[in-house]
Amino acid sequence: MAKIRLFIDHPLAAGQPVPLDQGQAHYLSGVMRQREGAEVAVFNGRDGEWTARIDRLAKREGTLMPVAQSAPQQDPPDLWLVFAPIKKARTDFIVEKAAEMGAARIMPVQTDHTNSERIRQDRLQAHAVEAAEQCGGTFVPEVTDLQPLQRMLSDWDPSRRILWADESRVGVAETLAGLPAGPWAILIGPEGGFSGNERRQLADLAHVVPVSLGPRILRADTAAVAAMALWQAALGDWGGG
Amino acid sequence: MAKIRLFIDHPLAAGQPVPLDQGQAHYLSGVMRQREGAEVAVFNGRDGEWTARIDRLAKREGTLMPVAQSAPQQDPPDLWLVFAPIKKARTDFIVEKAAEMGAARIMPVQTDHTNSERIRQDRLQAHAVEAAEQCGGTFVPEVTDLQPLQRMLSDWDPSRRILWADESRVGVAETLAGLPAGPWAILIGPEGGFSGNERRQLADLAHVVPVSLGPRILRADTAAVAAMALWQAALGDWGGG
Repeated sequence: MAKIRLFIDHPLAAGQPVPLDQGQAHYLSGVMRQREGAEVAVFNGRDGEWTARIDRLAKREGTLMPVAQSAPQQDPPDLWLVFAPIKKARTDFIVEKAAEMGAARIMPVQTDHTNSERIRQDRLQAHAVEAAEQCGGTFVPEVTDLQPLQRMLSDWDPSRRILWADESRVGVAETLAGLPAGPWAILIGPEGGFSGNERRQLADLAHVVPVSLGPRILRADTAAVAAMALWQAALGDWGGG
Repeated sequence: MAKIRLFIDHPLAAGQPVPLDQGQAHYLSGVMRQREGAEVAVFNGRDGEWTARIDRLAKREGTLMPVAQSAPQQDPPDLWLVFAPIKKARTDFIVEKAAEMGAARIMPVQTDHTNSERIRQDRLQAHAVEAAEQCGGTFVPEVTDLQPLQRMLSDWDPSRRILWADESRVGVAETLAGLPAGPWAILIGPEGGFSGNERRQLADLAHVVPVSLGPRILRADTAAVAAMALWQAALGDWGGG
């Protein structure tokens, strides 16, 4: 369990040296107290997980040598998570949880009731990387820039269905088992819910499927995990459906 | 959505005055800027939700007068959550999430790989109350004291089945739809997983059902929400099963 896993945005292949940047070298030498000759696990989101030997390690630089692939590349199912950013700590949690739960793409949107004007996309992307390092995955979901919900909906390819966690439908959850396979997105609203205009617009779209998540009101971060669990079990790679 | 909801551990009935303690009076007057004559929602975990008028409000005391029941008492299904406490912030999150997701009882256990020797039961119980206030529920799950897993398992009534989120089974999630109804508990292990001894003991118990939560390793707080979502949809009051 103490295995060191490092995301490195560099091609991985046997015998092809991989340079460490300052942060990675500091993490391995200063934080994890690794020495030259030690082995760590690395992945780049494309080439699976590799066992790599630390060939050279200074305080601010170093070189890894990939030895052998330890796990094949495993991409998550084609599920996006669309959510309205909330307070900072909970937004970080949503991104972390989405990466753990196997979202392929994480899309913050601005809604009528969203407080944030902007997000730190780079910080959220770093959270997604860290979650992938911790959860043993070989894939890192892209976190997109904040965009208005209106624009996202008008640009949307309707062949990707949207599972809309509609908090006005608090009650009996629908079963997801009958829903068609294919590309999906889960849409989670802000605290305070979607506005009347947004609700009417969503209800009018044929590719939007409203669902309820039970009789209690869930916070946005809880709703995101719960909806993704149901989707993964019914249609995704949890295979329970 | 801005409705004030207050948990008050006092019988609620029309025309029966309810005294406010210092914390509640401060919350209503100092934090929420309420005045005498205003109406708030109150619940005590037994008598449903009531609309109550603020009859008297000073800085450190006051009186509410229940006017009418606004929602019937709604208890969650008979699902317990058993988990090994982790870092403080994540333990708080697990309790909050368990209350939102409709756990009837929240039980921290000490395992071979648990770091904490003790927990602040009162603080965790306060988190469960706050989550119930926020999620619109009328029920507050009891948070029990920390107890050793061994003792809990030997005292366990086997008529309550245990859904064991077994992280060594990372792979395809089982479908929960075929599982029998009745009292259940979900068991989530610590970071680092259960020890070999614990695993053998759990595997030997006929009332313990191991499940996998997909191909990625989930953090304990994520696993708790995901497992509860699947259980609620299959066997609980989400009714999707």
